[in-house]
Amino acid sequence: APQLEPFFKQVDQLSDSFIDRLRKAVAIPSVSAQDESRPDVFRMGQFLASELEALGAHVEQRPLGKQPGKEHLELPPVIVARYGNDPAKRTILVYGHYDVQPALKEDGWATEPFELTIDDKGRMYGRGSTDDKGPVLGWLNVIEAHKKAGLELPVNLLCCFEGMEEYGSEGLDDFIQAEAQKFFKDADAVCISDNYWLGTEKPCLTYGLRGCNYYSISVSGPAQDLHSGVFGGSAHEPMTDLVTVLSKLVDSQGNILIPGIMDLVEPLTEEEKSLYPGISYSMDNLHESLGSETGIHATKERTLMARWRYPSLSIHGIEGAFSAPGAKTVIPAKVIGKFSIRTVPNMESPDVNKLVFDYIKAEFAKLNSKNTLDVWLQHDGKWWVASPKHWNFSAASKAVTQVFGVEPDMTREGGSIPVTLTFEQATGKNVLLLPMGSSTDAAHSINEKLDKRNYIEGTKLLGAYLHYVAEEPMNA
Amino acid sequence: APQLEPFFKQVDQLSDSFIDRLRKAVAIPSVSAQDESRPDVFRMGQFLASELEALGAHVEQRPLGKQPGKEHLELPPVIVARYGNDPAKRTILVYGHYDVQPALKEDGWATEPFELTIDDKGRMYGRGSTDDKGPVLGWLNVIEAHKKAGLELPVNLLCCFEGMEEYGSEGLDDFIQAEAQKFFKDADAVCISDNYWLGTEKPCLTYGLRGCNYYSISVSGPAQDLHSGVFGGSAHEPMTDLVTVLSKLVDSQGNILIPGIMDLVEPLTEEEKSLYPGISYSMDNLHESLGSETGIHATKERTLMARWRYPSLSIHGIEGAFSAPGAKTVIPAKVIGKFSIRTVPNMESPDVNKLVFDYIKAEFAKLNSKNTLDVWLQHDGKWWVASPKHWNFSAASKAVTQVFGVEPDMTREGGSIPVTLTFEQATGKNVLLLPMGSSTDAAHSINEKLDKRNYIEGTKLLGAYLHYVAEEPMNA
Ligand SMILES: [Zn+2]
Ligand SMILES: [Zn+2]
Ligand SMILES: [Zn+2]
Ligand SMILES: [Zn+2]
Repeated sequence: APQLEPFFKQVDQLSDSFIDRLRKAVAIPSVSAQDESRPDVFRMGQFLASELEALGAHVEQRPLGKQPGKEHLELPPVIVARYGNDPAKRTILVYGHYDVQPALKEDGWATEPFELTIDDKGRMYGRGSTDDKGPVLGWLNVIEAHKKAGLELPVNLLCCFEGMEEYGSEGLDDFIQAEAQKFFKDADAVCISDNYWLGTEKPCLTYGLRGCNYYSISVSGPAQDLHSGVFGGSAHEPMTDLVTVLSKLVDSQGNILIPGIMDLVEPLTEEEKSLYPGISYSMDNLHESLGSETGIHATKERTLMARWRYPSLSIHGIEGAFSAPGAKTVIPAKVIGKFSIRTVPNMESPDVNKLVFDYIKAEFAKLNSKNTLDVWLQHDGKWWVASPKHWNFSAASKAVTQVFGVEPDMTREGGSIPVTLTFEQATGKNVLLLPMGSSTDAAHSINEKLDKRNYIEGTKLLGAYLHYVAEEPMNA
Repeated sequence: APQLEPFFKQVDQLSDSFIDRLRKAVAIPSVSAQDESRPDVFRMGQFLASELEALGAHVEQRPLGKQPGKEHLELPPVIVARYGNDPAKRTILVYGHYDVQPALKEDGWATEPFELTIDDKGRMYGRGSTDDKGPVLGWLNVIEAHKKAGLELPVNLLCCFEGMEEYGSEGLDDFIQAEAQKFFKDADAVCISDNYWLGTEKPCLTYGLRGCNYYSISVSGPAQDLHSGVFGGSAHEPMTDLVTVLSKLVDSQGNILIPGIMDLVEPLTEEEKSLYPGISYSMDNLHESLGSETGIHATKERTLMARWRYPSLSIHGIEGAFSAPGAKTVIPAKVIGKFSIRTVPNMESPDVNKLVFDYIKAEFAKLNSKNTLDVWLQHDGKWWVASPKHWNFSAASKAVTQVFGVEPDMTREGGSIPVTLTFEQATGKNVLLLPMGSSTDAAHSINEKLDKRNYIEGTKLLGAYLHYVAEEPMNA
């Protein structure tokens, strides 16, 4: 096993300067969604590039061109970097993003969102602290601690840090595809630190994400909105038909009612089932995050499976109907229902679409309505599942055990991180999600924070991971 | 029968000055819904009062106090007037309103909305032309024509013209109740001209209106909106429950599914049924007004019955769900469905409410959801049906036949005109709805108009009605 004490000691000694690095980064309001903040996003990219260069990395700022649909704006560059070029070492490609969600003090922040503010429990508040500046700087901290301790980095490190993640990662997919056999050519494995522990105490490794197919159903009839007094009872009402069709999609217990959908789902094996009881999670955790006791399932195992490895169907809303407070006696002429299906192995999007379209059209036909129904896919994103037994994961697991004294939970996520699949498909290498922050970090909300422990021990974890992954037997 | 030729001739001679009177009225943008237009509403009231006084009427401008919820605004006065005070004559109370709907050229008007513009087909375009300034001025025209022709008005005329009709008739109900035994004490019958012919050629008398009970159903669960990736499948979703409950209310063919509702509906008698075949209306008229062929029923009789004498249930929309264009993967925490039931004899509001509440709660209970449902009545307004055989109606029918050479259709309306019921209940007298405008007048829309024929012959009709109602045998 690697000897990590000198590295760990150096991290502890540098912890104040690492926090200072995070303070400087949080102070740059690199909000990708706001046009007027675009110069700050560039400034944040420059900050990262300068820090990496000062540490001795080879850095390139790669332009992505104009922003589609906002051609007056230049997309922020992808900051790619290489640290080490030893053919005898493995090469690890790490990803993170340096842009952040919008934040205004008046949204309800207790502190200035772009001033890192540390309370007496070591909670470091600030926009981007946990999403994703802390994890990105973690990699820089690892390099610095090795240098200062006179230690060699056990791998060649490739960095890919983007500046548009919070606004759809504009341009990134094409970039990764193009560089897979160029700048990223010698990557042996990929590591992404941009998600969160399931709870607050126990680290986890994440090996799966659900996909998402998002649909619209429109029902139209009259040429314009009608008055319900004048026409109620004499015309087919689009809203009646839409509500009836939507009610056939999913029941109150979360069961998808579209025939054939569940047949596409990979059966649960005994082996997979056995992963769930050990996971550090409870029904209280669910109720806390819901703010209510309206969970569907009785056990944590079934709850986590429902979130991670089974599909779900949510109805998001209706466009075109009366949606304001108060009362309006309108018969809307055209209404569009929106719903999405979270997908899991082995649901292929074309199969899902066919089942959805056929079923909805058949249900509508049963109504004998003279209205017109249309249903279409707005967008889809595929699920992702990696093998948690890959050497990339077993190395990370050993690193967690070394740093935190506990084996990590092997988790999946219900949502999607599309870049994960892009890296896997473009490089053909295993991708590991190795989170730094905890479930209470409030990414995307007010009072986002990163605990000092998660940042400093997290930096140790990233370094330890590089040591273990450098020597882990390649089983796959 | 009354000798009306001198009156009719005088109306024809004065027609240009009557149109000029309408031009002056349309030029005053008396929009009751816009705070900044309130001085114009007062100006319009003053115009009416001055014109009535110039004709020799006794006029009072009755203040209604501050506008509830907008205490910086004074409500426009009710203009009440008396013309004639002969105990030997019958007294007829007429109602109209001098405020109008908002209108902006840029909404799509082909002409300036507050400039009366007459095209070569005699269509007089302008906001308020048909709703309701034309009919209101019709009564003034009747007085003037009688005076100029040296004819005596055959009845005492009481006027009640309000300035807040398009904004909920604030304050009017209390005023009518209070004046029923004072200013309106000697009224023998009431006539309201504020609705429209069923088509464009044949006049009608209207003897019924549906009521409206407007309901909200809320379903709530989590403490805040959730991300469907994270929580989809593990929590009861309020939107799923609401859509399911809404789908149980009415089917695509317009059948109300709430048990017991149809049992409250007055059975169709053979006599009532026999009124429908003769009514001048066709399925083409329905399709034209819908702008589509999405009518439910095959015949005009069944269509008109569905609109006039059977209840209907319309779902208007959902508050709290995602209602914008595009895609958002939200699970809304609380959603409020809005629907209303158009009511008919003999549906009493408390009975309807009980059936609605009990049914919705029972349907929700079947779902075994941990979410919370609430259902309540937002507001209700009662249906109204008068006897079309009352002497008030038979007099009006004779007047129509005299002026237009055709017997009027006896119609009802699917919507409500709440002041009708108020007058009936407060005075205890028969109320007649005697429309002046036609179905194509586009009240409340862009390019509102009143045909010259409807205005001039309509003025003759109002005058003829006063003559017939003065001598019609009192059968009830
Ligand atoms: Zn992120
Ligand atoms: Zn984020
Ligand atoms: Zn009106
Ligand atoms: Zn109106």
